Amino acid sequence: MDRRTALGIMSGAIAAAATRTAADERERTLQSTSPKPHLRKIATEEAFIIPEIAAAVRDVVRQGGPNLDLKLLRLIYDAPADTAPTASAPPGTRDALARTFLPRLLDIGEGRLAEMDSNGVDMHLLSLTVPGVQMFVPENAVAFARLSNDRLSDSVRRHPTRFAGLASFAPQDPPAAVKEMERAIASLKLNGFLVNSHTQNGYLDEERFWPILEAAEALGAPLYIHPRAPSDGMAAPFRDYRMEGSIWGYGMETGTHAVRLMLSGVLDRFPRLRIVLGHMGEALPFWLWRLDYMASPGSRSDLRNQLKASEYLRRNFAITTSGLEDPLVLRLCVDKIGIDNVMWAIDYPYQPSAPAVAFLESAPLATADLQRVAHANAERIFRILA
Amino acid sequence: MDRRTALGIMSGAIAAAATRTAADERERTLQSTSPKPHLRKIATEEAFIIPEIAAAVRDVVRQGGPNLDLKLLRLIYDAPADTAPTASAPPGTRDALARTFLPRLLDIGEGRLAEMDSNGVDMHLLSLTVPGVQMFVPENAVAFARLSNDRLSDSVRRHPTRFAGLASFAPQDPPAAVKEMERAIASLKLNGFLVNSHTQNGYLDEERFWPILEAAEALGAPLYIHPRAPSDGMAAPFRDYRMEGSIWGYGMETGTHAVRLMLSGVLDRFPRLRIVLGHMGEALPFWLWRLDYMASPGSRSDLRNQLKASEYLRRNFAITTSGLEDPLVLRLCVDKIGIDNVMWAIDYPYQPSAPAVAFLESAPLATADLQRVAHANAERIFRILA
Repeated sequence: MDRRTALGIMSGAIAAAATRTAADERERTLQSTSPKPHLRKIATEEAFIIPEIAAAVRDVVRQGGPNLDLKLLRLIYDAPADTAPTASAPPGTRDALARTFLPRLLDIGEGRLAEMDSNGVDMHLLSLTVPGVQMFVPENAVAFARLSNDRLSDSVRRHPTRFAGLASFAPQDPPAAVKEMERAIASLKLNGFLVNSHTQNGYLDEERFWPILEAAEALGAPLYIHPRAPSDGMAAPFRDYRMEGSIWGYGMETGTHAVRLMLSGVLDRFPRLRIVLGHMGEALPFWLWRLDYMASPGSRSDLRNQLKASEYLRRNFAITTSGLEDPLVLRLCVDKIGIDNVMWAIDYPYQPSAPAVAFLESAPLATADLQRVAHANAERIFRILA
Repeated sequence: MDRRTALGIMSGAIAAAATRTAADERERTLQSTSPKPHLRKIATEEAFIIPEIAAAVRDVVRQGGPNLDLKLLRLIYDAPADTAPTASAPPGTRDALARTFLPRLLDIGEGRLAEMDSNGVDMHLLSLTVPGVQMFVPENAVAFARLSNDRLSDSVRRHPTRFAGLASFAPQDPPAAVKEMERAIASLKLNGFLVNSHTQNGYLDEERFWPILEAAEALGAPLYIHPRAPSDGMAAPFRDYRMEGSIWGYGMETGTHAVRLMLSGVLDRFPRLRIVLGHMGEALPFWLWRLDYMASPGSRSDLRNQLKASEYLRRNFAITTSGLEDPLVLRLCVDKIGIDNVMWAIDYPYQPSAPAVAFLESAPLATADLQRVAHANAERIFRILA
């Protein structure tokens, strides 16, 4: 047979395989006809929502209030998904883009898989998108976390080589949170947890939240602290110029949360707790020298840390590259936290996949290190089957 | 004569010269017998206070209130300068160290010069220490800024090759601030200005402060934005574990202030304004990719910037190395802001001189670049005579 016929048969066979089983799906990726060998890619901060929670977030938006997350949530959840760009959100702007996120957040099936395929992305580690269940009254938060985790687990079970998942929980009700965390690992076989920074202005170093940290440690499951806008007691300077979110406030809020965990001593109480931070570690690697110098153990009466910040960073943290596709910053972070603690992420659908893939594939790393960042660290840290 | 006698005569001559004229002082430094050629070093974030303002700050401390700067100010100004370490501030801790700062802050003469000499530091660019005059009622703030600038100018005139100075002003009263800024440059021949971030919770992008920015631009004099603790509307998560200050809050407050300047559009209104940031640019170089991506001009309805953050950073900013003696961070910053915009600093007396000097002398920079960071950039940016 001629070359064209052979290629036709091959691609026909590949297309058929794609519809068969999840294992076959992975095989197809590995057999890609790309000239360079396929780099297995697990994206580790990939967002989804379910319709029930989208509706409940819209209700929170309509109640209004001082919370700064409402600015973005209004754009995403309180406009029909098919809204045309308007004068207040001209086409091509980030305001207009925000109105396109919802359908992609809701898709944890075929549409998302096709988008992953077209970018050569093997797996999304899925997590319920910001603000998770953390803006709901406690009883709703507990119920929605459970529902979201069930739905997530269904998708993972249908596509076990394409999706893994981080469970949600309701920090508003720590005993219920612990119960759900245990169920998420033991029964649902999810891969860890994600929390969106503060919960009703409270941070996880506060004693009422310790059972949550204790459970994550006991389960050996990482806790991803994803950003949200600064808590109300920190919000004032972030109310202008949309500074509350991904532009600036997210990093200030989440970095501050991480430093509270370090300096409060909770990482001495739960020494095997693993915290994951996005956005290249929310600038902790940049500030590390100063943190070590200014907050050395015992040097001020209000410090509670037994170790230096740099010791916690390497022992208790891992970071992802979400939303900060800068090779120089990557290099700094690898130097500070170690190559085994850095994982690739896209932040789908908030960031486009193709540039995130290009950033990874062109990263200034030796091949073995590239494999670590692209998938091997995620496999080890989140217990994802290779 | 024998070698010993010759050395004795030489060192006697050198010691005598030190007491003569300022020009001779510089000569002595250049004739140092150190085996490697002397690297001229201008330290650019060096703090002082005058007795009258120290007393007024102590009064502010005793009034109390929610302001987070009071924690450090209490340690420095509301204990006798010779207090022995106590149980609440054991020797060797940063709490104990804080009680030793006052005598060194008050010395802008012989004691400081001796300390500079023993570390091979040629010049301190002096500035009134945090919180400057910004916690005083307006009429006192205006008077104290004037007094401080006069006293600073006296010291510079007595030791013109060893001291330069950044003027203080009272943002509480913008017209008076402008008047004092003009006097500081035209009459007192000072080298620029320093402000300690927010003034009574207001940031410099607010329209009432525009005359200050306009004056700095018109005078061609840089404005150093030095940290202070987070403003009251941002303070809540920084109230624990001494997180308000150099450990963490300083950077969050001052970085946020700088981003407000970028996104408010004031740098389009005053395009030749030069802002100086300490602490390696308060993490702006780390976040730059994300700032550019998320806050591109016109992409959100509340953004006011005509340029990208990275364009402002290179056009309108310079940074210093104060309090962040990390060679990897220095490399990142040089890459992001350019070698011509990075200056060395100690942050005397808050940081020790010897390690800051060692950090500079071992910096991973080519000789010409080292000269730029050590003194040439400061000479150009602050108009210091070489």
